Amino acid sequence: MAQAEKKNMLRIGMIGYKFMGKAHSNAYRALPMFFGGAPLQPEMAVLCGRDASAAETARAQLGWRELETDWRKLVERDDLDLIDINAPSDAHLEIAVAAAKAGKHLFCEKPLALTLADARTMLEAAEQAGVKHMTGFNYRFSPAVKLAKKLVDEGRLGRIYHFRAWFLQDWIVDPDFPLVWRLQKEIAGSGSHGDLGAHLIDLARHLVGEFDEVVGMSETFVKERPLPTEMSGLSARGSAAEDAPRGPVTVDDATLFLARFAGGALGSFEATRFAPGHRSTNSFEINGSKGSVRFDFERMNELEVYFADDAEDVQGFRRVLCTDAAHAYADAWWPAGHTIGFEHTFTHEMLELLTAVAEDRQPSPSFVDGVKCQEVLEAVERSVEERRWVKLTELTEG
Amino acid sequence: MAQAEKKNMLRIGMIGYKFMGKAHSNAYRALPMFFGGAPLQPEMAVLCGRDASAAETARAQLGWRELETDWRKLVERDDLDLIDINAPSDAHLEIAVAAAKAGKHLFCEKPLALTLADARTMLEAAEQAGVKHMTGFNYRFSPAVKLAKKLVDEGRLGRIYHFRAWFLQDWIVDPDFPLVWRLQKEIAGSGSHGDLGAHLIDLARHLVGEFDEVVGMSETFVKERPLPTEMSGLSARGSAAEDAPRGPVTVDDATLFLARFAGGALGSFEATRFAPGHRSTNSFEINGSKGSVRFDFERMNELEVYFADDAEDVQGFRRVLCTDAAHAYADAWWPAGHTIGFEHTFTHEMLELLTAVAEDRQPSPSFVDGVKCQEVLEAVERSVEERRWVKLTELTEG
Amino acid sequence: MAQAEKKNMLRIGMIGYKFMGKAHSNAYRALPMFFGGAPLQPEMAVLCGRDASAAETARAQLGWRELETDWRKLVERDDLDLIDINAPSDAHLEIAVAAAKAGKHLFCEKPLALTLADARTMLEAAEQAGVKHMTGFNYRFSPAVKLAKKLVDEGRLGRIYHFRAWFLQDWIVDPDFPLVWRLQKEIAGSGSHGDLGAHLIDLARHLVGEFDEVVGMSETFVKERPLPTEMSGLSARGSAAEDAPRGPVTVDDATLFLARFAGGALGSFEATRFAPGHRSTNSFEINGSKGSVRFDFERMNELEVYFADDAEDVQGFRRVLCTDAAHAYADAWWPAGHTIGFEHTFTHEMLELLTAVAEDRQPSPSFVDGVKCQEVLEAVERSVEERRWVKLTELTEG
Amino acid sequence: MAQAEKKNMLRIGMIGYKFMGKAHSNAYRALPMFFGGAPLQPEMAVLCGRDASAAETARAQLGWRELETDWRKLVERDDLDLIDINAPSDAHLEIAVAAAKAGKHLFCEKPLALTLADARTMLEAAEQAGVKHMTGFNYRFSPAVKLAKKLVDEGRLGRIYHFRAWFLQDWIVDPDFPLVWRLQKEIAGSGSHGDLGAHLIDLARHLVGEFDEVVGMSETFVKERPLPTEMSGLSARGSAAEDAPRGPVTVDDATLFLARFAGGALGSFEATRFAPGHRSTNSFEINGSKGSVRFDFERMNELEVYFADDAEDVQGFRRVLCTDAAHAYADAWWPAGHTIGFEHTFTHEMLELLTAVAEDRQPSPSFVDGVKCQEVLEAVERSVEERRWVKLTELTEG
Repeated sequence: MAQAEKKNMLRIGMIGYKFMGKAHSNAYRALPMFFGGAPLQPEMAVLCGRDASAAETARAQLGWRELETDWRKLVERDDLDLIDINAPSDAHLEIAVAAAKAGKHLFCEKPLALTLADARTMLEAAEQAGVKHMTGFNYRFSPAVKLAKKLVDEGRLGRIYHFRAWFLQDWIVDPDFPLVWRLQKEIAGSGSHGDLGAHLIDLARHLVGEFDEVVGMSETFVKERPLPTEMSGLSARGSAAEDAPRGPVTVDDATLFLARFAGGALGSFEATRFAPGHRSTNSFEINGSKGSVRFDFERMNELEVYFADDAEDVQGFRRVLCTDAAHAYADAWWPAGHTIGFEHTFTHEMLELLTAVAEDRQPSPSFVDGVKCQEVLEAVERSVEERRWVKLTELTEG
Repeated sequence: MAQAEKKNMLRIGMIGYKFMGKAHSNAYRALPMFFGGAPLQPEMAVLCGRDASAAETARAQLGWRELETDWRKLVERDDLDLIDINAPSDAHLEIAVAAAKAGKHLFCEKPLALTLADARTMLEAAEQAGVKHMTGFNYRFSPAVKLAKKLVDEGRLGRIYHFRAWFLQDWIVDPDFPLVWRLQKEIAGSGSHGDLGAHLIDLARHLVGEFDEVVGMSETFVKERPLPTEMSGLSARGSAAEDAPRGPVTVDDATLFLARFAGGALGSFEATRFAPGHRSTNSFEINGSKGSVRFDFERMNELEVYFADDAEDVQGFRRVLCTDAAHAYADAWWPAGHTIGFEHTFTHEMLELLTAVAEDRQPSPSFVDGVKCQEVLEAVERSVEERRWVKLTELTEG
Repeated sequence: MAQAEKKNMLRIGMIGYKFMGKAHSNAYRALPMFFGGAPLQPEMAVLCGRDASAAETARAQLGWRELETDWRKLVERDDLDLIDINAPSDAHLEIAVAAAKAGKHLFCEKPLALTLADARTMLEAAEQAGVKHMTGFNYRFSPAVKLAKKLVDEGRLGRIYHFRAWFLQDWIVDPDFPLVWRLQKEIAGSGSHGDLGAHLIDLARHLVGEFDEVVGMSETFVKERPLPTEMSGLSARGSAAEDAPRGPVTVDDATLFLARFAGGALGSFEATRFAPGHRSTNSFEINGSKGSVRFDFERMNELEVYFADDAEDVQGFRRVLCTDAAHAYADAWWPAGHTIGFEHTFTHEMLELLTAVAEDRQPSPSFVDGVKCQEVLEAVERSVEERRWVKLTELTEG
Repeated sequence: MAQAEKKNMLRIGMIGYKFMGKAHSNAYRALPMFFGGAPLQPEMAVLCGRDASAAETARAQLGWRELETDWRKLVERDDLDLIDINAPSDAHLEIAVAAAKAGKHLFCEKPLALTLADARTMLEAAEQAGVKHMTGFNYRFSPAVKLAKKLVDEGRLGRIYHFRAWFLQDWIVDPDFPLVWRLQKEIAGSGSHGDLGAHLIDLARHLVGEFDEVVGMSETFVKERPLPTEMSGLSARGSAAEDAPRGPVTVDDATLFLARFAGGALGSFEATRFAPGHRSTNSFEINGSKGSVRFDFERMNELEVYFADDAEDVQGFRRVLCTDAAHAYADAWWPAGHTIGFEHTFTHEMLELLTAVAEDRQPSPSFVDGVKCQEVLEAVERSVEERRWVKLTELTEG
């Protein structure tokens, strides 16, 4: 592992500068102002992108000091401590292994890789290199999710019976929305399952524990789409011409599955991009013997909380606005009642990354969590393919 | 007072059979089934209406035994114990005084009369006759309002600082909606103020106590409307022809006022029929030193409740569905979670009426409450007219 | 079929007088007042219950004219036109077959029978007798559900992609809640699945169409419970002593399943009695290519509606309060904005029953729907037992 | 006016570094990343604070290049283009006048000054100096408020009948909360009225137009409070000892007022710090002849919108999540459905400031708006004092 030249600074090289690259940059920039007391601060050293012109524009706008166009050079530089990988999913494996070999700490967006085998290879590389590794499950870092986790851990919800979660979007309901990379299996690995379902699986593991078995189903409602004229982002809504050449959609539009957790709870999961009215409804509910919690990302500052032992005439779900001094991260932000936005799930995520490196421990979630999420994703895929229940042990013991 | 011929039955004569007459009839019919244990049950004896044909149709449908077309005969019948007055407001005074003189118990819809002086005359007549008297403030009898009252009375909200309430409707926003009787001062007394504001005032008195002083403002946004071809109900929406003859609207479309309560709380009130999207939003919020409650009649089974001494990480308004065994009236209805409708505010109201008669005490709210509501209504009207704060003592001591 | 002696009256004999018997009685009583124009009105002729004393009390309170204590005598009486069966589920079969043979029209609560075979026997008996038959899926008759159905039928939601539904309750979360009949397989048939899931299945069929295949899972979280001292209703909450003798719970506490509909939509279903904070959350959402709808029974007067073709700057779920003149049944009730309660799903249900008899057609939902619901219930049970996807054709073609 | 040395950079000197100073700094930092295309970008040049040690800490954390401890020196520096004034309200006047005389552009937090006279002096100074001036009404810049404004301006709500607004907080409900500067009239000018009510007044002017007349009332519920041991911020909750020396609270805890707008609409306003459960509920509703909108700052990404001409069976308030491409600022942020936080009302505010300077026009809202807000504030205060309606012309024509 490289030594930071500047005291208390972690020198970062980042690969990718689209949606996630922008979110990470913003998080790194926010840390000194809002978490100035953290033991380590990020140095936004080098941004890396293949398209020199576009990458340079991004570098200037996002606030990185230098540019690299070859990720192989980037990971070999000896003036960097950590590589932040947010390139498309098909590039994760090669970069992560090379960076680990070069002794760099690793941050990698989810899903960790296109396959479970690849994810395991990445974890092994990181472990062999003795570097720190983190997977980008940013929703864990919403203050409301933190509160849910606290209530579970403190036993305030009792024994957990149910976890149900759904991640609903609607950005590709239009059949003329183009065939962007997120709809191509060879780049994205999977569709709603790996993109949205992966977040739900991680939240489930985080809040309820390990999975025991799953059974699922998938569907691709729109089988062909217009080829995109240029690689568009999430916002390419309806941009394609009607007579544009079309190609096959090779990922799932929707994947649902049921699960049994090792601890005995029952789980229900749904990820879809075909739910009009839901721009990005990432929602879950937990029912335990003593109470319940509900979360909806579109109102991410809120957690609904129910306690079965409240006085009998005033029982009901409480809408807790997680901006009080008693809530995670609230001291760093604004007075009570003043909400924060989506972007700061990343700020808190990067705070954990930097703190873990400073404390010489693995961040949480690490690549281990990335691999375990991939196990569940793949168990569901196997279940869909073979139309049967799949035990997680089939993937972990085989 | 007349003696009930049948044991445990209160023989009722009812004047009026439109919206309120239907609601009362339904309440009387519901009592034996849902509150069969009450000490007194209603006998739906005689319905009274001037238009013999229409009244007979109503009698048959609403389930009354006999018909009278002359209310003077009705109140003189010696086979009746109580007169239920829900004719238009301009008829209340004469009927109530005559019925009281005939020794009949009285139930009268709000507002009690067109003027405070008339309301007082009615109360005096009832008191001189020694009969029971009740004013139809039905919203008091919503289980959620009962819970609010209980929390206030038990001190669970602490010292009350604020009461704010609004009753918003939109049924006359269309300028071609016809000039029905509710828009004519000589029949209705006032517009949104007496119709909607009266309910808010009564809830305020019920929950927070007496008024000390008020200042208000009124407006009639649409000054002229088409004359109705026939006297239409609330549902005459947009029925008038464009070239129909028009007449002046002589009541307020909206009335707002501020208030100071005798106990030191501050009040804010708004009643309007010009709030698109609000079919009938009767809503209030109370803030006290220890907590707050919120009510919205469109979700009448719910009360939102906040306690300042909840554990600091789970503070928030609770959505209490007032259908649990711990809530008022719930035992009589359905299992927890199964809601009741608007109509049963009247069922509970009539339960109080019958129980009070059986227990030989005045019902609550009585004509005294009707008069006190009228005092506030009139204080506000005086304030609007004279553009100044008006003390309630100006009306009660002068 | 017997002839009604009184013109325009359907003479009813009802078996059962607990929760459902009370709900039905209330519905029959409401019809003349609110739907006086219907071609046929109910005559509440004979109530039937084995316990003569308790049944007589119920008869008097619920408003039935006569009492029978032997259902075999009841179904043979020639002064009755219809038998309303709301006894515990294990009694449905025998009564329905006998009543059909006696030429009586049939109304039967859901689930129709303990097994699919029994349900089919009931349907066959009714068809052979040529009588009318209806199954008690009352939630279809909520005005908000009616609106959802209308939007689907008129194509305003487009092609349906998703149906997700959950029926969550919490009345047996306490492990000391006693072993009431609803927790015993031999009487109730199943637990949350047949009690709650049956409603979801019927709503799914009603709104989205037939099922193609299912895969499910079940759990009984609390395996033993105190024996009840007397047969308690839904409200026996925590009434048992700690050292009371205990017996095995033989039904499911929770059942979840995934489904594929014949029309291509994906379904997700969850029924549980272990969801603290949910007294009776019967909720569904439909996503179609043109829009979505959401329903929650705890706010049964509301339907949330989203249209993808709304102007792009004002897209969002609308909260539609289904009390406007444009909504089903609204004319019969109160002015816009004044809600109705749970009970009137039954009023509307019985209106359909009586109207269908008057029009000499089968009511909807009929026993056919009861059988089809049972097919899905049983397909799920087989799936749970055999841990595999089950095609509906396995049950219908075997 | 000074010339920016660096091309396209506006060199800023900022006075104050507490809540508002932090919010402004964060906004300046965000601009290059999210609004890199703006014609002018901020240069965070000099931070100014009297307490050298605390100010230096703030400077380092908030990211300013240099420090000044004397604001008189700051405003005279010739390497600055704009002075951002967010010191306590009693300091605004002197600083603004001096900075204007020194040719600096001005940004000043609301309320502009302690009195209307002072506010006018500030405006005159700015106008005489020919500099740009902006008042910090940041809520205008919430995307949901922008949408409300758009709907009003495009006539999609029709003629406006009602504006009702309330700003509810609860941070001083505890009577032992200390006597911080915001509770002292000589520093803060007023309490909830100037702090919270000022925002409501500005939103009303922005959305509905000018005020015609007002009538109000005020109250200080807790008359004495413990003296603070150190000048605490908003978060000094319950920090005082019981036997601490106490001083008089000289500002209002709550102020309510009614208003008539020049355009004929009626207004209702309430600002209080005594509403338990409301951390910072800044909420308004507008009712117009064609529709209504509702906003609640605790869910600042949402606007509820109702249109009276929606199809009659699907009328209802829509919950519009203002993160779509069609919404203000959305392109700069994240994909649809990903919310932003409180802080970016300031980012958008500063974008307007910089854009206006670049375009050589006055920003909106300018000091003119600050003065007009002060007129309404003072009209209300006069109304409270003299217990009468006060016309705005009394203040503007006197």
